[in-house]
Amino acid sequence: MPQPADLERLTTLARPHRDMINIMPLQTGSLLTDAARRALVEFGDGYSVCDFCQGRLTDIANPPVRQFVNEMLPEFLGSERATLTYGARDGVFMVLHSLTKPGDVVVVDGNRHYSTAVAAERAEVELVTVPNSGYPEYTVDAEGFDVALSKQHKVALVILTYPDGRFGNLADAPRVGEIAESLGIPYLVNGAYCVGRMPVRMSELHADFIVGSGHKSMASAGPSGVLGMKARWEEVVLRRSSLHKTKEVECLGCTVRGVPLVTLMASFPSVVERVQHWDEQVAKAQWFSAAMEEIGFRQLGEKPHRHDLMVFETTALYDISQRVRERGYYLYKEMEARGIWGVKPGQTKALELSTFAATREQLKQVVEAFQDILEKYR
Amino acid sequence: MPQPADLERLTTLARPHRDMINIMPLQTGSLLTDAARRALVEFGDGYSVCDFCQGRLTDIANPPVRQFVNEMLPEFLGSERATLTYGARDGVFMVLHSLTKPGDVVVVDGNRHYSTAVAAERAEVELVTVPNSGYPEYTVDAEGFDVALSKQHKVALVILTYPDGRFGNLADAPRVGEIAESLGIPYLVNGAYCVGRMPVRMSELHADFIVGSGHKSMASAGPSGVLGMKARWEEVVLRRSSLHKTKEVECLGCTVRGVPLVTLMASFPSVVERVQHWDEQVAKAQWFSAAMEEIGFRQLGEKPHRHDLMVFETTALYDISQRVRERGYYLYKEMEARGIWGVKPGQTKALELSTFAATREQLKQVVEAFQDILEKYR
Repeated sequence: MPQPADLERLTTLARPHRDMINIMPLQTGSLLTDAARRALVEFGDGYSVCDFCQGRLTDIANPPVRQFVNEMLPEFLGSERATLTYGARDGVFMVLHSLTKPGDVVVVDGNRHYSTAVAAERAEVELVTVPNSGYPEYTVDAEGFDVALSKQHKVALVILTYPDGRFGNLADAPRVGEIAESLGIPYLVNGAYCVGRMPVRMSELHADFIVGSGHKSMASAGPSGVLGMKARWEEVVLRRSSLHKTKEVECLGCTVRGVPLVTLMASFPSVVERVQHWDEQVAKAQWFSAAMEEIGFRQLGEKPHRHDLMVFETTALYDISQRVRERGYYLYKEMEARGIWGVKPGQTKALELSTFAATREQLKQVVEAFQDILEKYR
Repeated sequence: MPQPADLERLTTLARPHRDMINIMPLQTGSLLTDAARRALVEFGDGYSVCDFCQGRLTDIANPPVRQFVNEMLPEFLGSERATLTYGARDGVFMVLHSLTKPGDVVVVDGNRHYSTAVAAERAEVELVTVPNSGYPEYTVDAEGFDVALSKQHKVALVILTYPDGRFGNLADAPRVGEIAESLGIPYLVNGAYCVGRMPVRMSELHADFIVGSGHKSMASAGPSGVLGMKARWEEVVLRRSSLHKTKEVECLGCTVRGVPLVTLMASFPSVVERVQHWDEQVAKAQWFSAAMEEIGFRQLGEKPHRHDLMVFETTALYDISQRVRERGYYLYKEMEARGIWGVKPGQTKALELSTFAATREQLKQVVEAFQDILEKYR
C-alpha cells in the first residue's frame, strides 16, 4: 500500500498563486465567477447533478440542465442543437467518430491544436493541413482551404481552429464556411478560445459544428465543454442507442455527470454578459502588445491583434538565460516574485500570454516587471 | 439571448437535501471527504491541476499526479499500470476501442450496466450475453462464460460487472478470469461499484483490465475514473500519438484536466482506509436486508448479500400507490419528509438502495420510516 506520508500529502493539496496576476493562456478564461464558486461547494459530491435525473442528463429539470442545453446553449452558440462534452477535444472526436470512416480525409488549418491531430489519429482519419504563412504572422488564409479541398477526393470534414491557441490568430472563419458549404463538406469550428470570450454565432460562420471549452473560456471548472450543431446532424452525432433509447451512443449515455456542469451553468450569465465587452478585451490586448513592443519584444501572430492570446518573441530574456545560473528558470522565478503567474518555468525565448483576466493596471505591472527584469540583468 | 430571469436562476443553484440520510445507490460512494471539499475550493478554476504541467497530465509533479497515477493507483488496484479516465464507462470504451475491430464479439454478463452496451455500440462490436439466473436472485454463473466462450469464434474481450449496479451481486470474478485466461482472451472487470468500496486486486481476479469510478465509489467529484491494466496492454491502450509523442491517443492527450482529479486524490487516503472496513459494510447491509424483510419487503439478488447495493421488492408500497392521489410519488415525498434521500420519485414497486453512507442508526430510521408509511396508509 502507498506510504502514509505520501497519502497524507494528498489531503492538503494547495495552489501557490491564488492572488497573483494571471496571464497563463490556459487559465485566464476559466477563473470561476462567485456564482460558480458557490455552485462548486453545493454540488461537489459525485453525481450531484443527477439528484432528479430520470434517465437523461440533458433532460434534468433541477438543476435546469434541460433548459440550459436545449434552449440557452443553442441561442448562445447560434446553433440549432447543442450538447455537453468533456471539453473541446472530446466534441471534435465525437464529430469525427460519427461522420468519418477510417481512411477518410479531414482538412484542417496549420495552427490546429495538438488534440485535433490526436482525435484524428483516434478516429483513424488522415489530416491534410492548410499551412500557415510562417514567421512572423503565422496566419491561415481561408483561400488555402479552397486549394486544399480542390486537390482532395472525398473530404469528410473541414476543421478550423478559431482562434488558434498559440498565436490567437483569427482566420476568416465565415469564408472557410462558404468554401466548405459550396462543396457540400461539413465544417467544424474549434472555438475553444472564442466561445465564452468573443461573441460568435455558428450560423454566421456557415458552420455545421462548433465546439467550446468550459475550462478554457467559459469560467468553468473542467472537464467541461459544449458542442453546437445544425439540426440535420442530430441524428448522426446524437444518435440514440438501439438498446437504451434514452441514451446517446457518442456520449456513452451521459458526459459531464458532476460539478463542472454546474459551474458551467452558474457562470453562464456572466459569460453571456462578458462576450458583449469583447471590443474592450481587444483594445486591452492591442495596448499590451504595443507596450511590450516598446520595451523591445516582438509580438508574433496577426497585427493589429484581435485576441487576448499572444506570443511574444523575447530574445533579450533568452540572452539573459544563457548567462545566469538558473538558466531559463530565472524568468519564472522573477515574475513569480513580482506576483505574476503564467510564464512557463523554463521559457524565455518566446512567451505565450493572455491578457483576458488582468486589468490594464495589472498588465501595466506585467510590462513593468519585464522591464525591471531586463534592467536587473543588463 | 436567454431570458434574464432564466439566467438569474443559474447563479443560485442549490441542492435541497444536504443533511438528509442518503441511500441513493449512485451517490453513497461519492460523498466528498473534508479533504476533498478543501481541494474543491482550492482547485475550482478550470485547468487548475495544470499549473505546473510540462506536457503530460500524468507526469505533473505538483499536485503529485505522477505519483498518484504511476505508483499509488497501480498499488491500490493491484494492476501493473494505471491511468485516469472520465469514469468507468469511458475506461470501458478506451479498452474496447483499442482492442477490438468493428464486428468483433465481446462476451459480457447479463447484469451489465447500460453504458457497457452503449460503449459496445460506439465501438461497433457485438455483445454476447451470459444471462443471469432471473428472479429472484439474478446471479451470473461464472461457468456460463465457459459455455458462451466455447460457442463463439474470435471473442475480443470478456467483460464482467463486479458487482452489478442494480442487485449488487458479486459474480465469481476470479473464476471468470481463469476461464478467459485459459482461452487467451483479455478480461475487463467493471469495478465501478467495487473500486473504492471493497478491497479488490486486479491481479487476484486474473484480469487484464479493471475500471473504477471516482464519482461512484471513490469519494470524488465527477467526472472521474481510473483504469488499471497489465503492463502488456500499455502499448495498446496507452499508445502514444505519432505526431505528439507525449500524448496518448485514446486519452486525446489529457482526460481529467480539472477539479475532479484533485478531489479523487484528496479523498484517496480515506478510500484506501475505508476498503479495509468492507466487512463492516457487508454486515451492515445484511442487517438492513433482514430488517427490511422483517417488515414485509423482499430483498432481490444474492443472499446472504455481500454488497451495500440492494434491490427490495416492495409490493405493499406499490399497492398503496394504486389508491393514493399522488400515485407513485407519495413514497418519495413521505421519505423526503422524514429526512431520507434516495428513493426515486415515482418508484414504489422495487426500490434500489445503498447502505454504504448511512450508519446503522440512520438505517434504523430508514426502516422505521418505511414501517411508519405502511402503517399510515394501511
